[in-house]
Amino acid sequence: MSTSSYDEFRENVRGRADVEDTPERVAFYRELEHLQAGALWTVANKIEPWQPKSGSVPVLWRYQDLREYVLRSVSLVTPEQAGRRVIYLNNPGRQDVAAAVGWLYSGLQVMHPGEAASAHAHSASALRFIMEGKGAYTIVDGHKMTLGANDFVLTPNGTWHEHGVSEDGSVCIWQDGLDIPLVNALEAGFYVVHPDLQQAVTHAVDDMPALWGGRGLRPQGAGWSKPYSPLFKYEWDATYEALLKHAKVSDGSPFDGILMHYINPVTGGPVMPTIGASMQLLRPGEATKAHRHTGSVIYQVAKGKGYSIINGKRFDWAERDIFCVPSWMFHEHANLSSTDDAVLFSFNDFPVMHSLSLYREEALAENGGHQPVTG
Amino acid sequence: MSTSSYDEFRENVRGRADVEDTPERVAFYRELEHLQAGALWTVANKIEPWQPKSGSVPVLWRYQDLREYVLRSVSLVTPEQAGRRVIYLNNPGRQDVAAAVGWLYSGLQVMHPGEAASAHAHSASALRFIMEGKGAYTIVDGHKMTLGANDFVLTPNGTWHEHGVSEDGSVCIWQDGLDIPLVNALEAGFYVVHPDLQQAVTHAVDDMPALWGGRGLRPQGAGWSKPYSPLFKYEWDATYEALLKHAKVSDGSPFDGILMHYINPVTGGPVMPTIGASMQLLRPGEATKAHRHTGSVIYQVAKGKGYSIINGKRFDWAERDIFCVPSWMFHEHANLSSTDDAVLFSFNDFPVMHSLSLYREEALAENGGHQPVTG
Amino acid sequence: MSTSSYDEFRENVRGRADVEDTPERVAFYRELEHLQAGALWTVANKIEPWQPKSGSVPVLWRYQDLREYVLRSVSLVTPEQAGRRVIYLNNPGRQDVAAAVGWLYSGLQVMHPGEAASAHAHSASALRFIMEGKGAYTIVDGHKMTLGANDFVLTPNGTWHEHGVSEDGSVCIWQDGLDIPLVNALEAGFYVVHPDLQQAVTHAVDDMPALWGGRGLRPQGAGWSKPYSPLFKYEWDATYEALLKHAKVSDGSPFDGILMHYINPVTGGPVMPTIGASMQLLRPGEATKAHRHTGSVIYQVAKGKGYSIINGKRFDWAERDIFCVPSWMFHEHANLSSTDDAVLFSFNDFPVMHSLSLYREEALAENGGHQPVTG
Amino acid sequence: MSTSSYDEFRENVRGRADVEDTPERVAFYRELEHLQAGALWTVANKIEPWQPKSGSVPVLWRYQDLREYVLRSVSLVTPEQAGRRVIYLNNPGRQDVAAAVGWLYSGLQVMHPGEAASAHAHSASALRFIMEGKGAYTIVDGHKMTLGANDFVLTPNGTWHEHGVSEDGSVCIWQDGLDIPLVNALEAGFYVVHPDLQQAVTHAVDDMPALWGGRGLRPQGAGWSKPYSPLFKYEWDATYEALLKHAKVSDGSPFDGILMHYINPVTGGPVMPTIGASMQLLRPGEATKAHRHTGSVIYQVAKGKGYSIINGKRFDWAERDIFCVPSWMFHEHANLSSTDDAVLFSFNDFPVMHSLSLYREEALAENGGHQPVTG
Repeated sequence: MSTSSYDEFRENVRGRADVEDTPERVAFYRELEHLQAGALWTVANKIEPWQPKSGSVPVLWRYQDLREYVLRSVSLVTPEQAGRRVIYLNNPGRQDVAAAVGWLYSGLQVMHPGEAASAHAHSASALRFIMEGKGAYTIVDGHKMTLGANDFVLTPNGTWHEHGVSEDGSVCIWQDGLDIPLVNALEAGFYVVHPDLQQAVTHAVDDMPALWGGRGLRPQGAGWSKPYSPLFKYEWDATYEALLKHAKVSDGSPFDGILMHYINPVTGGPVMPTIGASMQLLRPGEATKAHRHTGSVIYQVAKGKGYSIINGKRFDWAERDIFCVPSWMFHEHANLSSTDDAVLFSFNDFPVMHSLSLYREEALAENGGHQPVTG
Repeated sequence: MSTSSYDEFRENVRGRADVEDTPERVAFYRELEHLQAGALWTVANKIEPWQPKSGSVPVLWRYQDLREYVLRSVSLVTPEQAGRRVIYLNNPGRQDVAAAVGWLYSGLQVMHPGEAASAHAHSASALRFIMEGKGAYTIVDGHKMTLGANDFVLTPNGTWHEHGVSEDGSVCIWQDGLDIPLVNALEAGFYVVHPDLQQAVTHAVDDMPALWGGRGLRPQGAGWSKPYSPLFKYEWDATYEALLKHAKVSDGSPFDGILMHYINPVTGGPVMPTIGASMQLLRPGEATKAHRHTGSVIYQVAKGKGYSIINGKRFDWAERDIFCVPSWMFHEHANLSSTDDAVLFSFNDFPVMHSLSLYREEALAENGGHQPVTG
Repeated sequence: MSTSSYDEFRENVRGRADVEDTPERVAFYRELEHLQAGALWTVANKIEPWQPKSGSVPVLWRYQDLREYVLRSVSLVTPEQAGRRVIYLNNPGRQDVAAAVGWLYSGLQVMHPGEAASAHAHSASALRFIMEGKGAYTIVDGHKMTLGANDFVLTPNGTWHEHGVSEDGSVCIWQDGLDIPLVNALEAGFYVVHPDLQQAVTHAVDDMPALWGGRGLRPQGAGWSKPYSPLFKYEWDATYEALLKHAKVSDGSPFDGILMHYINPVTGGPVMPTIGASMQLLRPGEATKAHRHTGSVIYQVAKGKGYSIINGKRFDWAERDIFCVPSWMFHEHANLSSTDDAVLFSFNDFPVMHSLSLYREEALAENGGHQPVTG
Repeated sequence: MSTSSYDEFRENVRGRADVEDTPERVAFYRELEHLQAGALWTVANKIEPWQPKSGSVPVLWRYQDLREYVLRSVSLVTPEQAGRRVIYLNNPGRQDVAAAVGWLYSGLQVMHPGEAASAHAHSASALRFIMEGKGAYTIVDGHKMTLGANDFVLTPNGTWHEHGVSEDGSVCIWQDGLDIPLVNALEAGFYVVHPDLQQAVTHAVDDMPALWGGRGLRPQGAGWSKPYSPLFKYEWDATYEALLKHAKVSDGSPFDGILMHYINPVTGGPVMPTIGASMQLLRPGEATKAHRHTGSVIYQVAKGKGYSIINGKRFDWAERDIFCVPSWMFHEHANLSSTDDAVLFSFNDFPVMHSLSLYREEALAENGGHQPVTG
């Protein structure tokens, strides 16, 4: 990296690097380059910003736009050719790592009745949120789970997993969420195709949610020490009911309305070590205040219509639309209906932020907590 | 404690104390007594038994016997006089500490519509399991919970709590379970009467189970760092449903059938640091195998009829009967119906055993795992 | 337990039981006794005290008194006869359970050069604090540790262990500390004699303190998941040095001077799940303020002379004396030398109090924090 | 990202993407680009590699090369101009993020007697390893620590910190290690200059190592709940002594010799949530076997001389040289002296790998565990 200017990041602030290029210094810098080294003060202000500046941009992906392409992909490639037949979301600021936002990958996958993807395992952690269709299922380490719209299922790091749609089902579309970009960046990604391409189902169908989904209960004898939730499937009906109950007894969060986090019942913590997931309800007419936090979030509209203001730009959304909030950007949400709930599913990398002690959060102090809309 | 014999615990086994009294030794022992001391070998075999020998005996308390007395107590004393109007279970081996078994206290409490006990707090941890009646409620630190039959509610160590029955309710009877004997033995018991004798209800009724009872969900913003479960109330309907779901996908435990433990959703651990609680389903005709473990258990029959064999003695039980299993006694359970479930509620001191690394468990190896009935 | 009076615990305080015996009530109580039951209000005020009233009394055992008996025991019994040749400390209030205070057992053990006790294992957790002599050693699960005066060694729950003195050593006396009374009370005690009566030494001598005793270091590859510290031996020299360093940079505790707790380096927590241990330094002339806490403590004077005031009574102590502080009794310590340190070793059941959320502490508010001496 | 070829990552393996470009498909891909989307199968094999391929290359930086530049920097810039006067290590594969390897930054900093850097705080976690000179000190949140060669000090995430050299010291050079690249990548970096540019020293000098550095001891009353170690300074003498003791009682690791990890004494875990650090001793003549693991490591030679083979290439090192091992590259170490120890300090991002469940390790199976040297 030989460059003609080394002082482009100067800041005239006490405690910051402020060193002008001189011939002597530039000569020094050039010599250092041959030693695989550099002078910190030439890059210090760049690599130590005052606060995070996300490389991602806020994007809203309309389902009505994407759905057509997802369905068209069926005739373009077979699951065997594609591995998985997915249209992925490609943030303009993150195309080099194929991320929808930050270090999170997301895509829409389609399957026809009777189709099944091959089984594999990888270091990336994954989740799947069902958007439409009947008969979808996922098999995780021999546990088969049946899935309907707005159900949420985990396929964690290291598990054998595969997806399919039963013969008597209908065309299914779901959203995948993974930490592939993060795992790649951390140079820790492994991938294995199942030797038989398919797993045997070795337990009763839907056994894990039956065993671990009790209200304040855990099953005797079903030990669990893996770092992810044994409650592989989280069903929409129970989740929506929980949101409604919550709304009856609490005002919720000024920034998020009635927000509940999916948990690992063994620890009370997030569902997987790298990805958290949540569902939130915005009451009729509710408009939340703005806050920002470290960590990236991808939302899908599970129910209703409204808008979100992200970094001063308004994004209107309807059911099944997907949008993202990059790290440290102010955001606020509003339900446009005065009679119906709006419900947002989301997943995020907050567990990473918390494990590494990097989570930080801030309310917008000005303007009554609402952003002026500039975009 | 001057005694004439010091060698009553001798054992002729290598590695054990085996010292005969002699005049010289007895003189030595008597001198030591004046120094508040003794010779270990005179008591070693007594205080280091080969395995636990519980001071409690197995007891079954028939509800049809106790209920009459519980109801009669209403005319004998007012709640104001009694503090709480309770008939407690007094194990013949534990009368000095008023325990039902081991270090666990239990009693049956009755209240008429419109009655309420005064509010207090104590270091003992308590639970309450509703046996009959409508309109019962409990208030814990300002959170009011409404209660029906087979509901289970916590009033943990240090919380302000009070019980009552609403004006439009009916006569209510419930079982109390506490660790009073343990807390006293550990010389750690404190007791405070609420300055106003009654608490204000400061939250929406049933807010804690609404917030924390979601299936694999926790509420945003409702932080919880106390050492007990925020899900103060565990309802029968959801618990029974969970048992039925469990039974469909798993064979359960050979010793306990379909057994689920009530948990603190924040940690996945027991509901309180000193008391655990469970509910178990015995399928029609099921007869479990015998095992034994350290720790004491008190059972109440929530549904059905059957029998348990405890330390070789058979105890037949019907709905609402209560029985106890002392530490390290073999026990096995059977459902006498060939068509209906039997369901047992139980509470125990297993959290103490686990925290102190004293839990141990053993299956009965002989006789196909079933005890010969001797009593 | 048939008694003529049932109202001896009445308290004329709102919220407490205050029920006078009447013929009708007494008849009721007597009928209940046949059902293995009782009326709570007859015992409620007894079993729910306002605050702990320890059954133990403060005692100081003078080493000059005990030492003679300890040495005499050598001629009275062989280690083979005695199992272990120990004079135990028998609190006048706890003779039924052979406790020195609360649920803690303690005794003084003596061995001549070349003697060795047989190996055994038990559920009780034990520690040993060396008082005098050279050549003492302890073997724990094949790890042999050499021991000198004021060294402290663990023989935790479930480990094979044995003690001895090498042929070239001198007569050794040490203090044993165990939770035998607690483990018995919890009905969780198991005892096994080693099949060979002696263990093989399977690791380098003193390997565990070498591996785990690094200052802020842990050894790669030496996994440890047991519930007690792998640093089996804690040496006096390093401990005393740590106290001196601590004293240079901190004022310490107003109640305890310079107090440090022995820890399990794997967790930062106490050395064993049921017993904690500490060493504290009282600076020349230091007299601490009084406080009280739940939990029992046994002290041994490792160095110096002074006195402690316990529950209003003064106990003067010199090197090697042992004394106890029962639960919830005020206590304060003073170093009588104006030039030399005094150092107290102690062990306690605080880990039990903490695990069960029963620890509570209170400073003496009156009289400048010092107790009037009444005894 | 419009490209002419979309099928460059095809793999003819079952379960992997293998889709040839056709005009119809390419048209489809181009349309997707307008929707901020793409077809997963065009990038799947790229973003889901079979195993990690690090973007870093192994590098050894010779101290004799770097030292001259470090010293020259003194005359080139003042600390005020530079913020900090540091020559940083710039891995040829990671120049875009200024990393020495993976997501770890490292640099060499120099200070003259009487110089001091300004105080600041940032989200990045930092450590400092002293290479030469007398009189260096670091202040962390008001705790001042004095430092000598091979001492290791922490300046964790969020702490106010500053470095200096006392007036009576000599020119000091140390190595800085930080997670700046990781924190930036995670979009979680904050930076604040201390309002006074200098902190007050509010505690006794070297108080934290005095309080927390006891061997198996923790100070009473010095609570600590922060996510990093309170033992801010780890001294060379105690560390080297621990290595020697370790070597006497254990064979150590076949891959690393006698390896000890610096720990947080409060938890037994790593010193900071994002960076771990270790010191290892290679015995005279020792040559370890090769293994590889996820996570990146930067080594500095604290003592001795030898070589490491990394990914098949041999790097010879002497005291103060620095080298790096990228993720998932095989590496092995050898001490070239037959009489003297060699000692390597290292720091790494293993805590990240462990927290996110991404750590994986593998021994080299072939060739007796040794790599053929190809480079």
